[in-house]
Amino acid sequence: QRSKLPHVGTTIFTVIGQLAAKHQAINLSQGAPNFPCSADLIRYAHEAMQAGHNQYAPMSGLPALRQAIVDKVETLYGQRYDVDSEVTVMASASEALFSAVTALVHEGDEVIVFEPAFDSYIPMIELQGATPVVIKLSAPEFAIPWDEVAARISPRTRMILLNTPHNPTGNVLTAADVARLEAITDGTDIVVLSDEVYEHVVFDGELHHSMSRHPKLAARSVVVTSFGKTFHVTGWRVGYCLAPQALMDEIRKVHQFAMFAADTPMQYALARLMAEPEHYLGLSAFYQHKRDVLSQALAESPLQLIPSRGSFFLLASFAHLSDESDSDFVQRLITQHGVATIPVSAFYRDGTDQRVIRLSFAKDEATLRAGAERLCRI
Amino acid sequence: QRSKLPHVGTTIFTVIGQLAAKHQAINLSQGAPNFPCSADLIRYAHEAMQAGHNQYAPMSGLPALRQAIVDKVETLYGQRYDVDSEVTVMASASEALFSAVTALVHEGDEVIVFEPAFDSYIPMIELQGATPVVIKLSAPEFAIPWDEVAARISPRTRMILLNTPHNPTGNVLTAADVARLEAITDGTDIVVLSDEVYEHVVFDGELHHSMSRHPKLAARSVVVTSFGKTFHVTGWRVGYCLAPQALMDEIRKVHQFAMFAADTPMQYALARLMAEPEHYLGLSAFYQHKRDVLSQALAESPLQLIPSRGSFFLLASFAHLSDESDSDFVQRLITQHGVATIPVSAFYRDGTDQRVIRLSFAKDEATLRAGAERLCRI
Ligand SMILES: CSCCC(=O)C(=O)O
Ligand SMILES: CSCCC(=O)C(=O)O
Repeated sequence: QRSKLPHVGTTIFTVIGQLAAKHQAINLSQGAPNFPCSADLIRYAHEAMQAGHNQYAPMSGLPALRQAIVDKVETLYGQRYDVDSEVTVMASASEALFSAVTALVHEGDEVIVFEPAFDSYIPMIELQGATPVVIKLSAPEFAIPWDEVAARISPRTRMILLNTPHNPTGNVLTAADVARLEAITDGTDIVVLSDEVYEHVVFDGELHHSMSRHPKLAARSVVVTSFGKTFHVTGWRVGYCLAPQALMDEIRKVHQFAMFAADTPMQYALARLMAEPEHYLGLSAFYQHKRDVLSQALAESPLQLIPSRGSFFLLASFAHLSDESDSDFVQRLITQHGVATIPVSAFYRDGTDQRVIRLSFAKDEATLRAGAERLCRI
Repeated sequence: QRSKLPHVGTTIFTVIGQLAAKHQAINLSQGAPNFPCSADLIRYAHEAMQAGHNQYAPMSGLPALRQAIVDKVETLYGQRYDVDSEVTVMASASEALFSAVTALVHEGDEVIVFEPAFDSYIPMIELQGATPVVIKLSAPEFAIPWDEVAARISPRTRMILLNTPHNPTGNVLTAADVARLEAITDGTDIVVLSDEVYEHVVFDGELHHSMSRHPKLAARSVVVTSFGKTFHVTGWRVGYCLAPQALMDEIRKVHQFAMFAADTPMQYALARLMAEPEHYLGLSAFYQHKRDVLSQALAESPLQLIPSRGSFFLLASFAHLSDESDSDFVQRLITQHGVATIPVSAFYRDGTDQRVIRLSFAKDEATLRAGAERLCRI
């Protein structure tokens, strides 16, 4: 079969998930909570279904949910988006990112993307016949090398794909990053596609620099986020994106044909839960505690932890321990030690070994402690 | 904004839906039931959520649902698909069609597509940089002109996009159609993408000719269908596709990045409902009755009905009544007569007026009668 993505295999999350299940490993791999969502949320979904809300939602999303989103964004980030034309409910952040790239990136364009990168980014750029311009982030800070970004901007640069808080490194953009990004894109028509699915998971009192917080950037940005990550329902497949109308018009042309609309009862339920802001306002503290539990429980392990400032993830290096590749090491941790993690090489297009693994702390404390205990014995 | 789909506006279903709501029209436009789904199905979804099934499902779909699908397909159509590698649960038939076209159609390829065509087909082909080769179906039979198909096959023909039962015409493929399709594609590597979302809605004792029923065609086909249409939950966003592994491997490469996975609790619920085949085995009779109620109630109307052999739709011509375009006529029916329908010109790439409207009979009988009564008075 002639392939449009000849170098792509099955996503690492599926591969590791299957191996973890086979070996009944403690699963610290995917960023999927193993604890329950709010009981209210389930009740709201049930009530929506019973009220008969089981048919197509509007293509752009349920009005009540769009309203709740723009209100939240204005309260938190100060930017007022138009509820009819500048917000679209998507069937996951994945769908939002894919629709934005498909709609906005043309053949021959260049898209600046940072590695390590979530595994969908580069394939979705390549599917458009565009060129990913890959810039490396370096441990332990994984800060964006803005001089290199400036140097690699070209007349063909169509988009910069950002992710803050960052999966897998736990880096978060700072005010200084934002200032550089503004300066570099000023006077261009470069679009910033900002994956902010962990927007409510930023630690140690730092601020989440949503593109929506910065008017100049907001005017050129597509901001993507996920209800699944925020409300502990990654299986519900609802996210959204924000963008100025000229960009959103194009994104909706793809969304309306690629997906049409997101799940209806789930949208009703999420619109109601959005009226209870404590669910997301407390999220940073909730996950910071989990990060700390895992980090402390790993203090006695031979792994070398790389500090996480946001997201569900913590990186750990084993370079001083073993000459194995991170893929082999992860494989051995699952089969011999019963703990599943993700090899960071999976976040590199060419799969270059990093001798670093990613641990998800989106788990209950007992799981975090049990996983750490096994990792202390390696 | 430079557009990849410059000729595409907002999908007709959104445009008409909004106009219908504004004028509180009786809505015979979209193929969305206005009657409830099975109460069991809601209970199953609720139980799944309460049992904690709210996180990512496997990328390819819940194993129990994939098993239920391949078992059903074998029972009904005789073809045994491999449960691991030849079936994928998708977040709607729309997503399945879009993923298949994105994965399999390359720049410069040609795709044969029949008009009238569901409004997503041609844009999704154009997004790949491929050429839609458009063949017209003619009223009142809307049969596929196979001699023309044979004549327009070229070395660049990559795919034939079929839809049976057909939206909007209500045509269904016959054994003779299948024989011609087999003969024409024999010895080529043309893929048949078969949109069968109305597979369980075929009237007057006719057979649904799924590509899965015909081994030679099944070996080159991607068969797409929808749980939403079958179980009265178009807002739940779950569908699936079947394909030989070599094709499915490519489709999954797109699906895993464009969507990752479909809704988890809905998949659990649908897997349980699939164990009750009466829900889909009785569907043809259920919708045939609705077709007949609407047709009979319209017998006194000035519209000229075009017989429907399957799907949720009935076409009606007003060419003998008025010189208006079908868009203007539909607009007037909504604003002056309080009935919403779809202009069939929306199913033509160039929007050529057909002076035909499409009525959806996926409505309760009271709605069908009330809508028909208004149409009798035009
Ligand atoms: C489909 S995986 C989505 C992101 C995530 O949860 C992860 O990186 O583990
Ligand atoms: C998103 S519309 C899907 C198909 C349908 O219901 C219609 O054609 O009306």
